[in-house]
Amino acid sequence: MVESMVIERKHGFTQEERDAVYRVIRERRDVRSGYLSRPLENDVLLRILSAAHMAPSVGLMQPWRFIVVRDTAQRARVHEVFTRARDAAAVLYAGERRELYTRLKLEALLEAPQHLCVVCDPNSEQGHALGRHSMLDTPVYSAVCAIQNLWLAARAEGIGVGWVSILDPTAIKSLLRIPPQVELVSYLCIGYVEEFATRPDLERVGWQERASLTSVLREEFFDRSAQRREKTP
Amino acid sequence: MVESMVIERKHGFTQEERDAVYRVIRERRDVRSGYLSRPLENDVLLRILSAAHMAPSVGLMQPWRFIVVRDTAQRARVHEVFTRARDAAAVLYAGERRELYTRLKLEALLEAPQHLCVVCDPNSEQGHALGRHSMLDTPVYSAVCAIQNLWLAARAEGIGVGWVSILDPTAIKSLLRIPPQVELVSYLCIGYVEEFATRPDLERVGWQERASLTSVLREEFFDRSAQRREKTP
Repeated sequence: MVESMVIERKHGFTQEERDAVYRVIRERRDVRSGYLSRPLENDVLLRILSAAHMAPSVGLMQPWRFIVVRDTAQRARVHEVFTRARDAAAVLYAGERRELYTRLKLEALLEAPQHLCVVCDPNSEQGHALGRHSMLDTPVYSAVCAIQNLWLAARAEGIGVGWVSILDPTAIKSLLRIPPQVELVSYLCIGYVEEFATRPDLERVGWQERASLTSVLREEFFDRSAQRREKTP
Repeated sequence: MVESMVIERKHGFTQEERDAVYRVIRERRDVRSGYLSRPLENDVLLRILSAAHMAPSVGLMQPWRFIVVRDTAQRARVHEVFTRARDAAAVLYAGERRELYTRLKLEALLEAPQHLCVVCDPNSEQGHALGRHSMLDTPVYSAVCAIQNLWLAARAEGIGVGWVSILDPTAIKSLLRIPPQVELVSYLCIGYVEEFATRPDLERVGWQERASLTSVLREEFFDRSAQRREKTP
């Protein structure tokens, strides 16, 4: 008890603050509809980008680069890239699954007043390559951590974020003049939204139920389920 | 004003809650020292793993698998894998940079009472491959989003997390009986800690300064800096 009081004082998160952190994690949604036409104020956009920029990165490399896309014509071109990829993927589904696929609302590229393209520059000298010799993809992982930070900060601000992965990366890189060696990590729709759904869209429309935590949890080894442990006190 | 009040009511994050979200993002650290020997209580561990499990995932695939490693002998074996990778990377540095490298505290594998290995199962049927045809690495990115959720929840609980990327993935997969087709994404030290540093370790010891947000921000195109925009009102 004494030890936990010491921790409380040193680390200083109150129960209310902890609740807020869990709340934003729980209520974050991948938003693909209901965007308002009102653009983000510049200071608000910079605030959620600052949250992204505070992410962990391998060797303190900070390899993420954030491209804000607002131009209407450019957003329409990105939407065309999406449409081609969506139609190309449709043929991979059959029967009822295909019908369901064609009805999915998968993006809001025309509605959301701004996009954010997150890329990773693997050639940056920053970080002096620390931690990049044995696990080569760590710079890209750092960029993904930045995206998740931004996603949570945006939710707390009442801003929706939707990750659009049905895109040809080469076409997007060409549109945004991204050099070949720079990796496209994510293309996001961002904007104020009418509301946040209580459940993920893909669950609500019957595409996929969520799995239980127990089903993805293992003890000591990949092939040792944690379920047995839950059953014994 | 009316519109912003409506948003406030619908989305419901108070200023205090928003502050807590930004605080946890700002005060999260990659912790490599100062772990306490007291193990995490099972309910606390499950709580931060639940936060991870609420991450976004491509097609609602939830491809992450969490392996909790507590066994002392196993932790020592993982530490040996780290030592070999650390020494192998040392030869890549010269002069003062090498001296600095050898002094870095890069992990806490023996001190932290539990490790978490996060892997991605790309063969899962869950999600019906939605969003995985044009951008192939999206399942791994989902697993990284889960890690960042856990990292933030842990910080709010006074729990340190340290991402150890100086490891041979093949050796770790062998130790943890991870099948070849399952991808090792991250190996984390987790545990209660004495304190959280106010600045990143790598900055404090002079390995790398942090870059400004402006330096990573672009407008419309990768090669168009956002700096000019900041200068004009």
